[in-house]
Order: sequence, then C-alpha cells, then structure tokens
Amino acid sequence: MAAHDAISIIRAKRDGASLSDEQIDWAVNAFTHGEMADEQMSALAMAIVLRGMDRRETARWTHAMIETGRRLDFTGLPRPTVDKHSTGGVGDKITLPLAPLVAACGAAVPQLSGRGLGYTGGTLDKLESIPGWQADIGVGRMREILADPAGGAVICAAGADLAPADKRLYALRDTTGTVESIPLIASSIMSKKIAAGTAALVLDVKVGSGAFMRTRDEAHALATTMVELGTDAGVDTVALLTAMDTPLGRTAGNALEVGEAVEVLAGGGPADVVELTLALAREMVALAGLDTDPADALADGRAMDHWRTMVRAQGGDPAAPLPTAAHIDHLPAPATGVLTRLDALAVGIAAWRLGAGRTRQGAPVQAGAGVRLHAVPGDRVTAGQPLLSLHTDTPETFDRARHALAEAITVAEEAGEHGARGPLILERVAVDRP
Amino acid sequence: MAAHDAISIIRAKRDGASLSDEQIDWAVNAFTHGEMADEQMSALAMAIVLRGMDRRETARWTHAMIETGRRLDFTGLPRPTVDKHSTGGVGDKITLPLAPLVAACGAAVPQLSGRGLGYTGGTLDKLESIPGWQADIGVGRMREILADPAGGAVICAAGADLAPADKRLYALRDTTGTVESIPLIASSIMSKKIAAGTAALVLDVKVGSGAFMRTRDEAHALATTMVELGTDAGVDTVALLTAMDTPLGRTAGNALEVGEAVEVLAGGGPADVVELTLALAREMVALAGLDTDPADALADGRAMDHWRTMVRAQGGDPAAPLPTAAHIDHLPAPATGVLTRLDALAVGIAAWRLGAGRTRQGAPVQAGAGVRLHAVPGDRVTAGQPLLSLHTDTPETFDRARHALAEAITVAEEAGEHGARGPLILERVAVDRP
Repeated sequence: MAAHDAISIIRAKRDGASLSDEQIDWAVNAFTHGEMADEQMSALAMAIVLRGMDRRETARWTHAMIETGRRLDFTGLPRPTVDKHSTGGVGDKITLPLAPLVAACGAAVPQLSGRGLGYTGGTLDKLESIPGWQADIGVGRMREILADPAGGAVICAAGADLAPADKRLYALRDTTGTVESIPLIASSIMSKKIAAGTAALVLDVKVGSGAFMRTRDEAHALATTMVELGTDAGVDTVALLTAMDTPLGRTAGNALEVGEAVEVLAGGGPADVVELTLALAREMVALAGLDTDPADALADGRAMDHWRTMVRAQGGDPAAPLPTAAHIDHLPAPATGVLTRLDALAVGIAAWRLGAGRTRQGAPVQAGAGVRLHAVPGDRVTAGQPLLSLHTDTPETFDRARHALAEAITVAEEAGEHGARGPLILERVAVDRP
Repeated sequence: MAAHDAISIIRAKRDGASLSDEQIDWAVNAFTHGEMADEQMSALAMAIVLRGMDRRETARWTHAMIETGRRLDFTGLPRPTVDKHSTGGVGDKITLPLAPLVAACGAAVPQLSGRGLGYTGGTLDKLESIPGWQADIGVGRMREILADPAGGAVICAAGADLAPADKRLYALRDTTGTVESIPLIASSIMSKKIAAGTAALVLDVKVGSGAFMRTRDEAHALATTMVELGTDAGVDTVALLTAMDTPLGRTAGNALEVGEAVEVLAGGGPADVVELTLALAREMVALAGLDTDPADALADGRAMDHWRTMVRAQGGDPAAPLPTAAHIDHLPAPATGVLTRLDALAVGIAAWRLGAGRTRQGAPVQAGAGVRLHAVPGDRVTAGQPLLSLHTDTPETFDRARHALAEAITVAEEAGEHGARGPLILERVAVDRP
C-alpha cells in the first residue's frame, strides 16, 4: 500500500485514470485517519468533479466509506426492512406519513435521518416540534421498536459512527466547491443508507427549482447512479424522479409540516402529498415482498395508529398541540386570475429566513416558523386575497422573507394549454441485479 | 470584494469561467494571508490544472503574486539590466559562465537564484562549493556589484519577500498533484523574475527526458506563456527551447560543474556548453541593446575577469581548489560501438543519489558529489572502458546510483541515419509587444 501515496492517486484521477480498488480504499481510509491531508483530498475531490468516477469506482468509494465505520444489521427481524430517502425539497414531509404507513403494511422501516441545513428542512427538525419527541435513541431500542407488531417504524438520528468518512468528506466538499459531482453525491447518500442495514430502499430524487438537481437529466443520472450503488451492494433499490418546482403540499416549516402529515394520516391532506406518499409506499411494500395495498392501510386508520405508536416510542405526545409561531403575516395575491407559478426555492428560502431552517450546523430552529400556502398552482385567485402566510417568532425576519418571495409568484389570465402544473411523478428508475 | 468568497471563485473556475481580475486578486491575497484555506486553494489549483487560465488571467495571477511582496528596482544603474532563467536540466551550469560573460559585454545581470530540490541542481548549491562564497547578500550590496565596471554580475539568493504567495502556493501544489499546469508553472517562475526588477529576460526552456517538460509541444506552450507574461509586464522577454535528453556538458554535480564552467571561461570546455552559453549570451546582449559579440568577450579573457570579480564580490576565492569527493567509482561501457543514448534523467537521479542534490528543503548537499561523463552520445566506446565516474563522500550510495543508471545507456554498432544527437537549440520564441 506504500506505493499509493496521496499525490500519485490525485495525479492518476487528474489525468483521467480509473482508480483501482486499492487506491480508493487507501485514499478514503487515509483521509478519515488524517494521513491524507484536507488539501490533498480537496484536490482529489475536484479532480473527481471534473473527471468523474465509473460505476466500479463509485461502488468501491461507497464501500470504502462504509468500512470506515459501523454497519447496522437488522436481519433476523420478524418483518422485512425497507427504507426511503429523499434528496430534499421544499415542503417535503413525506417521510412522516410514509414510515408509519409502510409499517402498517407489515414492513420494518429503520429510517436514520438528519437535521436540515439551508433551505430544505430536516425530518428530525420536523419531528422535534412534537412535544417530548427525542431523535437520539440507541440501536437496541431501535430494534425493539422495529420488532414491535404495533410499531415497526422508527425515525431517528444517525450515529456519528455510520460512514464517518462521509461526514468528514462532506464538510470538506462544502467549503471547497466540490459538492457538485454525481459520484460523490450518490456515494455520500448511499454509504449512510447501506450502512444503516436496510434490505431494500426507495429513493425520491427531486427535480426542479426547489431541488438540488435542477434538470431532469441530472436527476436521472443521480438516480441511476444511486440505484446502481444500492443494487451492487445487495440492497434492492428503486428510485422515483418527482417534480420540485412548487412546494409539496401547503406547508413549509417544522410544526406546520407535522400538522399536514397528520392530516394525511387522518385521510385528508393535500392531494400531491397523498399521491406521493402512496406512490412511494407502493414501491416500498413491493420491494418488501408484501401484498397489502397502502391505500387501504391509510384509509382504515392503521397508518395513523402506527404514527401514534412511532411518536410515543420516542417520547413524543401525538395528542399534544403543536407549537405555533408568535407572529403571522400575509402575502396577498398580486392580481386576479390563475396562479400558474409558486416557486419552490423562493418559498424554501422564505421559510428558512423566517426561522424554520439553520445557516450553520448545530444552530436552533423555530418549531412554529414557516410558510403556509393558501393557494397552489392551478387555483384561481383574487387580487389582494391572502396567498401565503408567513409564520415566525422573530418578526424582524418578515422583510427578508418577503424579499425572497418577490419574484416567486405568477398569476395569469388563463392556466395555459397544459394547465398550471405538470405531473408530480416523472419517472421510475430501476436496474437489473448484477 | 465581499462577494468574492473562496467557494464562488472555485466554482467559477471549476465550471470553466474566466476569473475576473478582482477574483484573482482576492484569491491570491486571501490565500497568502490565510483567509483562503489550503484545502480551498488546492481545489482551485486543481480546477486551474484541468480548466486552464487564459492570457489575461495568467498575467493577473502573476501580477497578484508579485503584489504580495517586494519588487526590486534596478533602474538608474549605469548599465542595462538583463537576466536569464532556465527551467532546469541535468548538468545545466550555463548560468555560471553566462552571467560574467554578459556582464563583460556591458550589461548588468541581477540573477536571483535558488537551491536545488530533486534531481536538478541549484545554481546556489554549485557556487557554494567555491570556498568562502556566500549566497546571501543584501539588495544594497547587490546594486553596488551591478554598478561596478569590473563586476556587473551577481548571483544570489532571492529574499523571502519576493512574491511570497508563490512560495506558499508552490509548497501546496507540490503535495496536492497540482504542479502540472502551464499557467501555474509560468506564473510561478515569472512572478519571481519580474519582481526581481530586470528590464529584459532570456528564458532557457528545456525539453526532453531530463527536463520538466518532456515534449516539444509542452515546452513550446510554456515558453510562449512565459514570454507573454514577461512582455505583458513590460520585461523584454525571449525564450530558447533547448534539448535536455542527455546531460549538458560532461559533469553533473556542484563542484564538478563549477570546474566545467571555469574551463568554458578559460576558452575550453564541452562544445554544447559553449554553444548554449554563447546563444543565450547573444540573446541577452541583444535585448540589452549592446553591440559586443560575446564570443570575443569569451575569447579574450574578459568573461573570466568578470567571473573572478563576481566570485570575490561574494567572498569566494576563485583561485582556491574546488572540493572533491572522497570516493570515485567507474561505470564501464557495456559494449563496443557508438554511444547513442545517455539518458539525462538517469544521470540526474544518479548524481542526486550520490549526494549532489537534496530530497527535502534545507538538507545539505555534498560539494564534490556527482557524475562525470567520459563519453557523450556520438562518441565511439570500447566495452569495459570507463564511461561514467561516480563521485561521492558516501560510498554506500554507489549501488543506488548504479541502479538509476541501469537502463540509461545505449551502445549501438552505428550512430544511425541522423547521428547520435539532434540539435541543441530547437526553437526561439518571441512575441510582439502589446
């Protein structure tokens, strides 16, 4: 291994070579243990951004990151395990109704999640708006919940010992302009998901203004790479490409989104949230080899039962009122006509500025802050009617939130030839097992 | 300037943009002062390696590096200033006879030089083999020597205050696989040469196995970029591309090369060393606007007079015997015939291993160590005759030196159609002033 010094590996990738398994293992390990300096890894990351990695390299890179830490093992549970990951969007609270719904269908859903950074919220931040709910539980307790016939769903914080190389590498990429690489993004996501020990995985890859992937081609490439990585690692993996040009549902913000998730579990909620929850649930149930229809489990209240069990199992009170913001302001519709555009990114930034998100790791978030949509694309609106309401405990943020929304809204006389909104689910990506 | 944070500059170059003057100034300054982290500059350097920089960007990068330090000013001297730089080769002692020769022709030659690292020797290391000679003199003393009618040539250590950004950047590039970029190599060399305050500059860009540029195309591109940088900065600059497949002259090593330089100044010496010294001297004299023929100044002993003055002015004794190595071993010709190849890189590595060079900055070198060639390509040799002699104070290095030379020598029955050796001077590169 002595021959694989950092410089020779950097130069090989710089010059367009495919790195050997041994070179990848060495680099990932040496970086994790401080033998390869940050300035060397950032140069290698930039070379990977510009030269790429092939399927074998990306799989090995992912494997090497997993090997730097612990790998959870949920084999031996009485139920099949299946997990879900979303690449992140505005108003994306789907995990909240989805995990208990899939558990209600008979699967175990071991969901290790994170906190938000920037304008996309984190699932743990949302759940933490429920009084008493705790994100940090041990693997032993996690296994108990997964095995409980009334439970089966757990959403908790990933331990620092899962793919620690990824944590360190992501922090470096974030400050060195080396985030935008499909092999590096895919291996970052999949190393944690594979290490978390699920047998099957459904990916929700977002496309559009409010998503990290702005174009369909980029999203397709990322989805394909992630599905390949999962499949090559023995995890049955499928991806859906879904639209993220306008916020999902009618809320963006922590407690606001929990409230909407509960509406969906109660049989109501916005049509797009219901549609995507059921589509992802059907994929998960199919991968788990179960034959329950998730629509039935949602309609008959079993999903809600599993939600309550899930919340209580982590100390939360599902009956407690959710926190609300101290100040609410309204943004009126600028004209009368059909709302044809409500930009997801702008709504995400507004919610973030209102206090729903954080700018740096570890900062607190406001449980009640966010944006509520009173109309969605396709709806007729009247000039001056409340279009959005802005929620915050810090009213000095209203101006900056309004500023973010200045160019976000289009009201037209007619909806146009194709209606105001395209399909939510764009494509399904799967690959043959090797 | 606040808008130009490190990440946005890295991303711009990563995505193929041409950086603005303001972005370049900010990055070079912020890196020099520790506001842009090493891992950010190494990512930017890798993006530059793979995306390049255009002529304006490279000129601005060079300017920004110069502006981080002091700029010497030799205007007002009674003689025109002209300097020379070689990109480095094996046995390249040309500066030693060249500087006093050009001074003898009426120019002032303010040569700030460096110590060697790796297999190419440093001019200061060579001169330091002369008993008493000191590399470190102040700028005031430098100016006195340049103004002295009997002197005019000074070869001394560059202060740390010349383009300090370059020193820091070079150390980073060296460990991050980002050395191989023509804009970065050219700006590194030219920032120091322009900051040193010469009015004119002749570049010797080496091509071949013993040079940093292995191909003619690369060397041409580097030469063109450096000539453009000098010209754009108001320094009259010309480059010669010269062959470096076989060592220059018959010696590689510090005192061995000084001895050969003195032979040249005395009217003898190897033909290739004389040819290249005169060719570079003619370019320098022409740029200085003088009309003395360097061949005359060499033949009539004026160059030797200026050499003695130059050595004495820095404390050296030009009449003192040069140090010799304690141990000498011979490498015999492997066959009878014509020596058609004696690889420069292999000879350089052998001399380095024998103790003539250093592996890390600041390590000592052996004054007497190195390699002497008893035959050069084109010579007829007889199997078993001494072909090379290896000189060292540390005889345990003989084996490793021999190992470096194992594949370096070819003896053929005939010299071949084009003779054993191509032309020494391959091309002259100049550009119009802007």
